[in-house]
Amino acid sequence: SGVLPLCRSPAWDRATRPPPSPSPAPGLPLAPCRAFSNNKIQVELDESSGVAMMKFKSPPVNSLSLEFLTEFSISLEKLENNRACRGVIITSAVPKIFSSGLDITEMCGKSVEHYSEFWRAVQEMWLRLYGSNMVTVAAVNGSSPAGGCLVALSCDYRIMAENPKFSIGLNEAQLGIVAPFWFKDTFVNVVGHRTAERSLQLGSLHPAPEALRLGLVDELVPEEKLMEKAAAVMAQWLALPDHARQLTKTMMRKAVLDRLVAHREEDIKNFITFVSKESIQKSLRMYMEMLKKRK
Amino acid sequence: SGVLPLCRSPAWDRATRPPPSPSPAPGLPLAPCRAFSNNKIQVELDESSGVAMMKFKSPPVNSLSLEFLTEFSISLEKLENNRACRGVIITSAVPKIFSSGLDITEMCGKSVEHYSEFWRAVQEMWLRLYGSNMVTVAAVNGSSPAGGCLVALSCDYRIMAENPKFSIGLNEAQLGIVAPFWFKDTFVNVVGHRTAERSLQLGSLHPAPEALRLGLVDELVPEEKLMEKAAAVMAQWLALPDHARQLTKTMMRKAVLDRLVAHREEDIKNFITFVSKESIQKSLRMYMEMLKKRK
Amino acid sequence: SGVLPLCRSPAWDRATRPPPSPSPAPGLPLAPCRAFSNNKIQVELDESSGVAMMKFKSPPVNSLSLEFLTEFSISLEKLENNRACRGVIITSAVPKIFSSGLDITEMCGKSVEHYSEFWRAVQEMWLRLYGSNMVTVAAVNGSSPAGGCLVALSCDYRIMAENPKFSIGLNEAQLGIVAPFWFKDTFVNVVGHRTAERSLQLGSLHPAPEALRLGLVDELVPEEKLMEKAAAVMAQWLALPDHARQLTKTMMRKAVLDRLVAHREEDIKNFITFVSKESIQKSLRMYMEMLKKRK
Repeated sequence: SGVLPLCRSPAWDRATRPPPSPSPAPGLPLAPCRAFSNNKIQVELDESSGVAMMKFKSPPVNSLSLEFLTEFSISLEKLENNRACRGVIITSAVPKIFSSGLDITEMCGKSVEHYSEFWRAVQEMWLRLYGSNMVTVAAVNGSSPAGGCLVALSCDYRIMAENPKFSIGLNEAQLGIVAPFWFKDTFVNVVGHRTAERSLQLGSLHPAPEALRLGLVDELVPEEKLMEKAAAVMAQWLALPDHARQLTKTMMRKAVLDRLVAHREEDIKNFITFVSKESIQKSLRMYMEMLKKRK
Repeated sequence: SGVLPLCRSPAWDRATRPPPSPSPAPGLPLAPCRAFSNNKIQVELDESSGVAMMKFKSPPVNSLSLEFLTEFSISLEKLENNRACRGVIITSAVPKIFSSGLDITEMCGKSVEHYSEFWRAVQEMWLRLYGSNMVTVAAVNGSSPAGGCLVALSCDYRIMAENPKFSIGLNEAQLGIVAPFWFKDTFVNVVGHRTAERSLQLGSLHPAPEALRLGLVDELVPEEKLMEKAAAVMAQWLALPDHARQLTKTMMRKAVLDRLVAHREEDIKNFITFVSKESIQKSLRMYMEMLKKRK
Repeated sequence: SGVLPLCRSPAWDRATRPPPSPSPAPGLPLAPCRAFSNNKIQVELDESSGVAMMKFKSPPVNSLSLEFLTEFSISLEKLENNRACRGVIITSAVPKIFSSGLDITEMCGKSVEHYSEFWRAVQEMWLRLYGSNMVTVAAVNGSSPAGGCLVALSCDYRIMAENPKFSIGLNEAQLGIVAPFWFKDTFVNVVGHRTAERSLQLGSLHPAPEALRLGLVDELVPEEKLMEKAAAVMAQWLALPDHARQLTKTMMRKAVLDRLVAHREEDIKNFITFVSKESIQKSLRMYMEMLKKRK
């Protein structure tokens, strides 16, 4: 638990700071967070293009556990602070699944302290990703429910494999739980109020073609072309001067980021109260049972 | 006039309250409002499905008179408080018209007290309907201008008869009057800012196919399939756990509901000032004359 | 520099004022601003229809210089105050270009005082146009980047010539600069948050067909039909009673207008700080060099 809060303020704060003075040797990682490990996410930076590839490799379903989230945030921070890195492509190394979302075992039968630490890690991940100064492209090569969908929604651009068996959506309502307000804000910013209202209330998981129609993803490509397309999109975005693009991104996203920053502790308390309810614990246990039976 | 303000706080307040303790005998109506009568709206609750059917039957055009609005709010409250009821389908028993909107005779040549009471009843209806914890489906089986359109916009889902002669829209500007800010907020939440701006300024009545294209309604079906489709949609929404769905709905709609609650008395005063103007009275009288000649 | 601030408060303030008492002789222009000149914009009012035609004629590219903006604001004010004028069609007398946007020479190597005066003139133009009580139709008969796009976005309706060589967009990011927040607010109100976020970050210039698809313009017509179509659209909007339409327009646009009014001096200071940076000066000089080489 010594890992969070992370060592640095969210990256999006920096958009208003003066540009950093002479850069360190390119590729030399800053090392403010020694606890960093690399078990669940594979990160490779191509210094010639300035593009990092981040691959979720936490089988069976890349669920967002406390450990995964911590590694995710630290990886994002390292890239953010590495002047050689201008963009990151996020994808999965696990077949058929991008990420299954928050790890329900972190929410079941744990202590209040654990819930608090877990929820802070979820917030931290989102603040870093949604507020990243880097160009962020999600290459969604599998299903992406709930928190997995949030990861995709928080990127600058979403490309999904053209496979109608893959679905994406904020389906929390199906589990008897409610997406936090900042999941909702992120969703509304992508698909608009009406689509978000309907999809959130129904807890819809949208097959890829529907996700495209709703604007939840920006384009579909055959799965074997996904990485090639992601690289092409990244190159297009990196053709813009960084500083103007970053300030523009901040302008678009600041209101929603600020809202969580202003209500962060309250949001953690709400989560603890909610998840501590016996009715919710029961729902989550039932859901986990159901998942086990499916296998 | 002893009916309003209604006996209870708006339903949407309850979303944050703890769930009610052991329910009363299903179907037993709570009776806080003895003045209740049932002249203009037919309400039938199917306790096996938990779905109520609400049919407007106030010929010739289901106009939203003070009496109609009062009955509407009371009916909604009764259903809301009835644990056996989880959803309501709203439709019309009058051919070719869903509702013609606010009853202009309530706004013409009446006292300030009357205008005040009438406007409060319009507000009350909207607060209850837009903030309902029940699943609300509008089966729009006829034209639905102005206040009639507001009723449809306030539901969770809108199905319209596939008849290009039926139209729907907030056409207040055509009458020389202005839709209140909360009509506008509701409209923007459904169709977005641009479509709302253009449609409201032009006072457009959109034929059913155009209404679908703009997102003003969610789908069109042949008129004879309307009720069947409404029941199917309702079943889909009721498949979700109530509590999570209700909290999600509140999250989506609270900002707009709160805005009227915060400015309710001011909004009534504005309405009185506006409607008391001789120029507006003249516009409304001309409009009524025109309607009479049409017959 | 004796011209700005203009003699009157923004037109949109008037929407909440009582309607003016007995009108002066129709067509008699009020004359609060004697400094008015007419070098860069040709204005013709057809008193029978109440429609003014405003043609940008500042070759080679109708760039929005201080002089152009001043004349634009004064022309708008004169029409606004002329009871014979109810609507204005804005178009270009220069082939292939609607307007190239802000005149970069006004931002390069000038004094702080000049930057301040220039930016105030940009604000003033937008406050008058976006808040105009008149019906405003943009007949976009050529390319329309950056500030030119803002002019079109600020109108009530946008018709563009059906020529894929003509493009439109807020491409500031391409130049290494950032669109001000009120450019962004205006854009979001037209195309929604997601489209705005992507388009602004990429500094996209959208060819006419794409602009239509994104909702950036309302329709495309063959270039030779553009003025005819603009007149027909204007007639449709003028069929509505002015007062209700104006109040509705104010209701839709007031929040965004108020935001600039509240932060006007701060916005000027930000512009001065930004444009005074050597890095920005360098970007702008490079861009101007590039434009010169293109010729």
